[in-house]
Amino acid sequence: MAMVALLATLSVVPAAHAEDGYDLWLRYRPLPADSATTYRANVSQLILPDATPTQAATRAELLRGLSGLLGSTPSVSTSVSADGAVIVGTPASSPLIAGLRLKLQGLGREGYLIRSVSVGGHRATVIAANEDVGALYGAFHFLRLVQTAQPLAALDLRQAPHVQLRVLNHWDNLDRHVERGYAGESIWDWHKLPDYLDPRYTDYARANASLGINGTVLNNVNANALSLTPMYLEKAAALAGVFRPYGIRVYLSARFSAPIEVGGLKTADPLDPQVQRWWRDKADEIYKVIPDFGGFLVKANSEGQPGPQDYGRTHADGANMLADAVKPHGGVVMWRAFVYSHEEPDDRAKQAYSEFVPLDGKFRDNVIVQVKNGAIDFQPREPFHPLFGAMPKTPLMMEFQITKEYLGFATHLAYLGPMYEETLEADTHRRGKGSTVAKVVDGSLHKYALTGMAGVANIGSDRNWSGSQFDQANWYVFGRMAWDPSLKARPIAEEWTRMTFSNDADVVKPIVEMMMGSREAVVDYMTPLGLHHLMGNGHHYGPGPWVSGGPRADWTSVYYHRANRDGIGFDRSASGSNAVAQYAPPVAREFGDIKHVPEKYLLWFHHVPWDYRTQSGRTLWDELVHRYTHGVDSVKQMEQAWNGLDGRIDAERHAQVATFLAIQHKEAQWWRDASIAYFQTFSQRPLPEGQAPPAHSLEYYEALSFPFAPGN
Amino acid sequence: MAMVALLATLSVVPAAHAEDGYDLWLRYRPLPADSATTYRANVSQLILPDATPTQAATRAELLRGLSGLLGSTPSVSTSVSADGAVIVGTPASSPLIAGLRLKLQGLGREGYLIRSVSVGGHRATVIAANEDVGALYGAFHFLRLVQTAQPLAALDLRQAPHVQLRVLNHWDNLDRHVERGYAGESIWDWHKLPDYLDPRYTDYARANASLGINGTVLNNVNANALSLTPMYLEKAAALAGVFRPYGIRVYLSARFSAPIEVGGLKTADPLDPQVQRWWRDKADEIYKVIPDFGGFLVKANSEGQPGPQDYGRTHADGANMLADAVKPHGGVVMWRAFVYSHEEPDDRAKQAYSEFVPLDGKFRDNVIVQVKNGAIDFQPREPFHPLFGAMPKTPLMMEFQITKEYLGFATHLAYLGPMYEETLEADTHRRGKGSTVAKVVDGSLHKYALTGMAGVANIGSDRNWSGSQFDQANWYVFGRMAWDPSLKARPIAEEWTRMTFSNDADVVKPIVEMMMGSREAVVDYMTPLGLHHLMGNGHHYGPGPWVSGGPRADWTSVYYHRANRDGIGFDRSASGSNAVAQYAPPVAREFGDIKHVPEKYLLWFHHVPWDYRTQSGRTLWDELVHRYTHGVDSVKQMEQAWNGLDGRIDAERHAQVATFLAIQHKEAQWWRDASIAYFQTFSQRPLPEGQAPPAHSLEYYEALSFPFAPGN
Repeated sequence: MAMVALLATLSVVPAAHAEDGYDLWLRYRPLPADSATTYRANVSQLILPDATPTQAATRAELLRGLSGLLGSTPSVSTSVSADGAVIVGTPASSPLIAGLRLKLQGLGREGYLIRSVSVGGHRATVIAANEDVGALYGAFHFLRLVQTAQPLAALDLRQAPHVQLRVLNHWDNLDRHVERGYAGESIWDWHKLPDYLDPRYTDYARANASLGINGTVLNNVNANALSLTPMYLEKAAALAGVFRPYGIRVYLSARFSAPIEVGGLKTADPLDPQVQRWWRDKADEIYKVIPDFGGFLVKANSEGQPGPQDYGRTHADGANMLADAVKPHGGVVMWRAFVYSHEEPDDRAKQAYSEFVPLDGKFRDNVIVQVKNGAIDFQPREPFHPLFGAMPKTPLMMEFQITKEYLGFATHLAYLGPMYEETLEADTHRRGKGSTVAKVVDGSLHKYALTGMAGVANIGSDRNWSGSQFDQANWYVFGRMAWDPSLKARPIAEEWTRMTFSNDADVVKPIVEMMMGSREAVVDYMTPLGLHHLMGNGHHYGPGPWVSGGPRADWTSVYYHRANRDGIGFDRSASGSNAVAQYAPPVAREFGDIKHVPEKYLLWFHHVPWDYRTQSGRTLWDELVHRYTHGVDSVKQMEQAWNGLDGRIDAERHAQVATFLAIQHKEAQWWRDASIAYFQTFSQRPLPEGQAPPAHSLEYYEALSFPFAPGN
Repeated sequence: MAMVALLATLSVVPAAHAEDGYDLWLRYRPLPADSATTYRANVSQLILPDATPTQAATRAELLRGLSGLLGSTPSVSTSVSADGAVIVGTPASSPLIAGLRLKLQGLGREGYLIRSVSVGGHRATVIAANEDVGALYGAFHFLRLVQTAQPLAALDLRQAPHVQLRVLNHWDNLDRHVERGYAGESIWDWHKLPDYLDPRYTDYARANASLGINGTVLNNVNANALSLTPMYLEKAAALAGVFRPYGIRVYLSARFSAPIEVGGLKTADPLDPQVQRWWRDKADEIYKVIPDFGGFLVKANSEGQPGPQDYGRTHADGANMLADAVKPHGGVVMWRAFVYSHEEPDDRAKQAYSEFVPLDGKFRDNVIVQVKNGAIDFQPREPFHPLFGAMPKTPLMMEFQITKEYLGFATHLAYLGPMYEETLEADTHRRGKGSTVAKVVDGSLHKYALTGMAGVANIGSDRNWSGSQFDQANWYVFGRMAWDPSLKARPIAEEWTRMTFSNDADVVKPIVEMMMGSREAVVDYMTPLGLHHLMGNGHHYGPGPWVSGGPRADWTSVYYHRANRDGIGFDRSASGSNAVAQYAPPVAREFGDIKHVPEKYLLWFHHVPWDYRTQSGRTLWDELVHRYTHGVDSVKQMEQAWNGLDGRIDAERHAQVATFLAIQHKEAQWWRDASIAYFQTFSQRPLPEGQAPPAHSLEYYEALSFPFAPGN
């Protein structure tokens, strides 16, 4: 009777705690009964130490995950007494694992193996590593196998990260505003730190550790020097304390002029001994409170930020000074290559290459140069950055944007896996064919001693972390590809979908299809055929192809699309800015030749006549309109696919996604209509037959104003 | 077997969803089994209509609440077929209720009765009202009876609100920053409105309706004129649609200069026909999208806001113009009396009275003047505002601050019930003894046709709504006292504690004691004996008794405490600013006489020598130090009491409160030490025996800087 009453309650109470996305891909909801029974036979007991904080975190995660998934808590034992034991640890932490004499060489500090073994005649699974953090990563992998309904028999997995620094960049200000953040405010409640440690910080660490993310830069690259003062270092140290058991190091963005602003010096010249001394002392001070501090991230001489060039010094001079300061403590400096000078260049796309290539080999060995995936700025599509492959003597790390500054903010569904994959797969040809960007990033092409991948986080205070359910997938795919840049977007999408929504094939398939096509849809309705940088001014919300004027030409749209009566596109071939020459000759030839350039980059590299015949057989103008419309249609299809899942997804998450898709549909139409209305003033051509005219006049679109669009 | 597995799951999964305060006082957690059994006998079936949105909300709330509390869902029936029916509705919506011929006269539109009756020989409870919203309020009252473990037999309750406009004021900006907000950012996600309706908006409406709050001003009184443009009106209309079923009307803060800023006019002069026309048209436009729009709240000619005085007109001229615009639609104008002129007055405390009393009787009948509880600005303690009782021909509404701008932000535990009660109980003597502020506010003293109470909300995007668990109680007590200003703080604290934490007497008693002493503790460690306005500059965080200089004297601390070698305090008696003369003669005599003024207001009204003998027998200096220390000791006692509840409160909420109390303790000590260090430079006297000296030098405290303290 009591049990019946309890069950009756169950059916009602969950309404008060609907699934809202807080749990991310670590939902650990009960598996179907038959599946749970099978798994329980493979997880009858856990044998794992908990002497260190990382071991305790590993144990807690396995108990939490397996209890949730299997509906019963496995017993924790010290020896194998039945079939189905799971043994976790390192040779140092676990006598059982030491006794198994597993081949752990080559796994490094963070790698692990998962193997089916026999112990005393009992079937068992071993999750073994050289260090605690490897065992933690292995535990998350093991949970993922269960979450995604993979068989546990005859396991023989070996995993080690292909990249050393797998880092989130938070563009979070000290007032909790997040630059280009679309998920509420910063999750760092600086005011209540260091005293109050929001339980959310721990869940953040769990989520990152589940992907192998091992570093986080807490503050915006447009940095405030106060982050380096004792009051804020104490707060950063408190966060570092939460993250440490999960293998995550804290980094800080350093404002180059901090010696002046908080140090009281008259200069920040990197060759000034007092300045060098100030940074050394500052590093010593930081490491006193954060012994495993990761190092500094620096945006210098870019978009108004101070830097070494203010003193006639080079980026190398600046980076090396900071590198020397953190070197005794094992820290690194991540120096951003996203620079453009105060003077307007003939082509902003060329600037980072021009400034950095001459510095190749001039950086200290604990400096890594952080390069955005493309040469402009996180557009829906960019060709790979010409710096990749061009600095063989300087470690380069990838900077991807996870937050969707240019891909529709949080409400547009745009899975970035295909975009990351496209960049990583791109062939630089710098060491012959097959010299992919991935091989630059994982260090194999140039034998870099230091490797890294950074993602500009999309995390905020919103209950669902990322502002939408599907933007969680972008955090996820970034983490997975940072671990191994050769991984592909599709299987990661499937894995995420299974963990986040369901293992049911009827759910997985349509969702993965939606995800895999979603970024191309955004490209189509925003910036097809290689167009770029056409969004609203400042906040970057909505279409703004008409944006012109302002403080500098390369912040306008007209600078990039160059539409006129003759045609459209930025001529970066030899007849234009010749930016193509920054690529290796085979790539330069391909991109520089209008006949050979991939059509997706057509208007990136060429100014093309309106009547140019595209691959479809349509003229450029007709093709452009066709692409815009196709983008909108793709969103319609996503809406239909999602609506078809009604009842298969929990109600609150389904409703939120459905609403966001409706917003995306409306805004895709807006992008299409406004763009066509604008470009038609140049093409002076009619719309192709069957294409609906824009819903409003060009003046209507130009007059729209959004002064409080988020993230600005 | 399946059932056992499910139960096993139950015992584990809740760890992932700890109680975090999101549910507020509407937790509806299962009652103890014996208690639930008793209640189930009284709630065997529900008989209630759901033809209208309000009826549907009422039914959903009763099902949700009773299911959660009693562990089983009551059946919904159309007739009484057993003992224990609960019949809800109005004579119009329920034939059963119509047949009972209950005396519903006098309950008005929002009142209700709850009565034990017999229907066809069966015991039943009826919740009846004249209108749907009254039935909704009655349903919440009924749930509260169960939540607080009250008997349901022989019920005979009649309730109707004593105040008409029970309104939250959100000081929320369009960029989601909340002025004086300490609970994250605004819950209004303006960017995603009107398309996305966060489920949180519905929970906000439920919480307010449970208290009888029937209005909400969505945007900051420091208003942006864009709130009145079509784009933002559409967003406000979407919120109004969510709130309407819960009896909540939407209001907007109106920027007085909007006709210039968004109307394109050259003036905002309230006597200009074009301006009047613009506001009439604007009102018509608003009511077209929000038919039940409540009206405007206006902050004019105060702290730099535009207003009628910019054109040589009076507050009445300004208010009446707006009142005329909304009058045809049944709207009201809430015109704030928190004004002080550009010129520095001899005593800012006198200004509102001086400006408004001459206007008594000059306002339209749909204007209500909104007066802060005290004449300065929401200090931890202020004597009641002298305007109360002084404008018999002008409806005055109370403005309380729920957010703790001056009482320690979200981390300090300060239950504001006793503060509200102290103000409401204060006797203005304007119609003889017993002319309390409560009687001004409920309209009974001056027969006001319009009555209201506003609370400046403490609600934000934080998961727990208010930034802390205990600040939820301040939202709660505001709502309860707005319904009935004669209610007392202690029983409300007990009611809230039972709903929020536990009905267990061993839990209720210590928590209520903590709450009831908490505001006095804050007064003691911040501003004892009538001191006021001594906080950090701008952000108001922490002690700043040394604040001086700046743009105007009445924004400094030294203006208010006037400490010197002779003594301390602001002489507002006849020998000083004579602010006391703004009170009725008996009050003026009491406050103006240092021998009769309540000691809690001593330094508010008098400049008192350091060696003045206080009621304790100590000198003023010794008493001051004693009070500061006593405040810190009171926080220590709260900490101890709370720590004693470890294990009696769910872990996450207990831990958060414990941490916040530790922060409060640290900051109380800071307030004490900094204040004593500062005032000792004037008193030049030693600390009383046994009193510890400040931990740091005065210079240390003065040097502390908090540029990113929240809410600024």
